[in-house]
Amino acid sequence: GMAKGAGMIEPMMATMLGFITTDARIDPVRLRQALVSVCDRTFNAITVDGECSTNDSVFLLASGQSGVDIDDAQWPHFMAGLEAVAGTLARDIVRGGEGATKLVAVEVTGAATPEDANRAARAIANSPLVKTAIHGSDPNWGRLIAVAGRAGVAFELATAAVRVGPVTLFANDAVYADREPEAAAHLKGREVDIGVDLGTGGTSEATVWTCDLSAEYVRINADYRT
Amino acid sequence: GMAKGAGMIEPMMATMLGFITTDARIDPVRLRQALVSVCDRTFNAITVDGECSTNDSVFLLASGQSGVDIDDAQWPHFMAGLEAVAGTLARDIVRGGEGATKLVAVEVTGAATPEDANRAARAIANSPLVKTAIHGSDPNWGRLIAVAGRAGVAFELATAAVRVGPVTLFANDAVYADREPEAAAHLKGREVDIGVDLGTGGTSEATVWTCDLSAEYVRINADYRT
Repeated sequence: GMAKGAGMIEPMMATMLGFITTDARIDPVRLRQALVSVCDRTFNAITVDGECSTNDSVFLLASGQSGVDIDDAQWPHFMAGLEAVAGTLARDIVRGGEGATKLVAVEVTGAATPEDANRAARAIANSPLVKTAIHGSDPNWGRLIAVAGRAGVAFELATAAVRVGPVTLFANDAVYADREPEAAAHLKGREVDIGVDLGTGGTSEATVWTCDLSAEYVRINADYRT
Repeated sequence: GMAKGAGMIEPMMATMLGFITTDARIDPVRLRQALVSVCDRTFNAITVDGECSTNDSVFLLASGQSGVDIDDAQWPHFMAGLEAVAGTLARDIVRGGEGATKLVAVEVTGAATPEDANRAARAIANSPLVKTAIHGSDPNWGRLIAVAGRAGVAFELATAAVRVGPVTLFANDAVYADREPEAAAHLKGREVDIGVDLGTGGTSEATVWTCDLSAEYVRINADYRT
């Protein structure tokens, strides 16, 4: 697999280009269904700056040269491999995002519907206040709760929770300020993991990968001439 | 009138506070209707960073101390005055936005519905690529068209148009590259005016005020500790 990204990244398939090849023998219709299914959780679950571009594309090509047919027993293994390759490429695009210094996984749980989970995760992943707080390694759980509350999804503050890495900072209306140094230490790493539970008691969840927002992003995009 | 803003500004009424007073004698129900009507085109038509806060509020207080009743003949004058005060305060909030160096009016025309006009204007006004281009005084009409195209509204590229200040850079599929220096000169000012026609032939329009996105915004929000 190969991919190209950098800026203008929140693919509904735009300036991003991805190519994945296999020598397995697979029917084109099934191959297309496999790619569409995997993209929802990989290439279409990343954002650098919330900007869809005009020519995002992912190609999956099967040459059949191995002579190996993927039968029903092997299909789950093929799908797992495809998702692993697509997910690695997608996250590499975010790591290479304009001005990015960190890869951030935003995991939303406790959503009433899959659409709510996705919408809240994207809102958090595109929030300039969240992305600058992460850039500054600031475990600012209030900004995360504020975005979840304004995302236009079902949300219950009394049972909502915020996690930074392994550290729960807010849950059931209680604030754990003494844990902030541990959360800040997690945020200083190159790979960051943020969890927000919307508190609805629903079981829907979504993960979106994003990067931090740095002064370098502004410099690249303010100085770059068309 | 008085207002307080700075960051976390895309009011659906949140960290922003606005207070407007009058000594006219006006029924509270009518006063409330007047304020709601005016907010749509003033306080709720601004954005600094697309972040709604948790306590945006605008208050309109009428003391009645002048003893002057606002009758039907005077009502349009009262409304015009109220909108002028509210609009001035709202734009001042954007001028004072974190890291802002320019006030930008985003005018969307040719929309199929008022909702489309508003949605497209907000998408443009919150786009990091548009806001960094304006910061760099770059008349990047392609970024404006790209956001209009991804905003999820009715859009016709063949009849769409982009204007920067008084200068049309793109219209009816023609690019006027020779006019870019004049557009760049307009963008170097402290007050910038951007127009995008969605090309649908519809007559709906909307104006949203925003600011540019600078490295200073990132510094303020990455360095500020909760």
